[in-house]
Amino acid sequence: MNDSKRRVEQASEPEGTSPWAGRRRRPRDHDVKREAVIRAAARAFNERGFHNASLDGIAAGLGVTKPTVYYYVASKEQLLFECFLAGLSPIREALREAEGRGGTARERLGTVIRGYAAAIASEYGWCMVRAHDQDLGPGMRRQINALKSEIDQGIRRLIRAGIDDGSISPCDPKLTAFAMAGALNWIAHWYRADEAMTASEVAEAFVTFFERGLQPRPRSQAAGRPVRGT
Amino acid sequence: MNDSKRRVEQASEPEGTSPWAGRRRRPRDHDVKREAVIRAAARAFNERGFHNASLDGIAAGLGVTKPTVYYYVASKEQLLFECFLAGLSPIREALREAEGRGGTARERLGTVIRGYAAAIASEYGWCMVRAHDQDLGPGMRRQINALKSEIDQGIRRLIRAGIDDGSISPCDPKLTAFAMAGALNWIAHWYRADEAMTASEVAEAFVTFFERGLQPRPRSQAAGRPVRGT
Repeated sequence: MNDSKRRVEQASEPEGTSPWAGRRRRPRDHDVKREAVIRAAARAFNERGFHNASLDGIAAGLGVTKPTVYYYVASKEQLLFECFLAGLSPIREALREAEGRGGTARERLGTVIRGYAAAIASEYGWCMVRAHDQDLGPGMRRQINALKSEIDQGIRRLIRAGIDDGSISPCDPKLTAFAMAGALNWIAHWYRADEAMTASEVAEAFVTFFERGLQPRPRSQAAGRPVRGT
Repeated sequence: MNDSKRRVEQASEPEGTSPWAGRRRRPRDHDVKREAVIRAAARAFNERGFHNASLDGIAAGLGVTKPTVYYYVASKEQLLFECFLAGLSPIREALREAEGRGGTARERLGTVIRGYAAAIASEYGWCMVRAHDQDLGPGMRRQINALKSEIDQGIRRLIRAGIDDGSISPCDPKLTAFAMAGALNWIAHWYRADEAMTASEVAEAFVTFFERGLQPRPRSQAAGRPVRGT
């Protein structure tokens, strides 16, 4: 685990590695413990894959028994579902924030890219990207797919808006959205191994990368048209 | 399955859906049948995931028994390994071809992108991208990781060469290589659902997409410097 992830965990678990370790009662104790179970599952899936990770192992990592885990979630499948949700929800929030604010569509897309990159670089990144939705039952799979589709459609909408307001170079919105999502999702494959950058540094680098790729290119306009300042 | 994939399969299986269906003996019969086993495994892993796919099901799909499958490969793990190899080898070949030919580094990178996109859009794409190398034993995993690393390093080398020869805009070669690989690998997630484009149309669209993103941008040079023609 790298430093930025450790910092995030310490910030949300000030009492130590497991919220069961201390005796102190806190408001929203149930939610905090449930979140700790989900985060521990995300780490276990990440390290060993969904099929190889066991509820016993996840419980042992938290210093509790398997029945305690079952108190918070119904099944390993539900743990995977919760990991998907924990990763995808912040991206949806970034999308809604972007849609509600001003600026060019390219700038608003930057807000989404930033939130997306941060979510993928979190411990939920592996589940969002590498877990197979075949491992979820039909109902859960439908919910996750609806959430993914909402995000995909929102990004396409911003790309189309950018083409309309002149802030994004004409392109195929669907293919461009897929290429962007792919580049961002791939962070889940390589980020852990690269401790040189924090999650937010990665996010900023991707914002810059896409900004450059999406900006209208003066020379690609009709020949002879004057070069506009950027 | 979409048309372009069906065409590829028909081209290599002119006798029907299984090389066991006919009675005719061909030279390299063993290789052809072995390849059919590996391709059938790739499709099964793709449809049901590695853990949910069974050797019985793969055998049944080919109209043979499980012992026949074992005649060609030692285990389900080896099938996964062979799927990785079948997908990654053409990318390595494209890389070697690109390194051996003339032109700017950006043009040579186009050769790699084309080969990469085609490989990911093939039936081996799922295994290359979505299968977990944790499912391979240490020896096989090392071989696959060495092959992936060779491809990654080759792409970074071409990006660096492009920055040097002026055909690629200054950038972080490692992050750019990851972003490109991610965008390309993501094709394995969405391609099957989109029957509107053939694999080679997707490849060309990605070449265009990256060409635009990587090209030096006159306005990003030092302020006041004259705009150069492209």
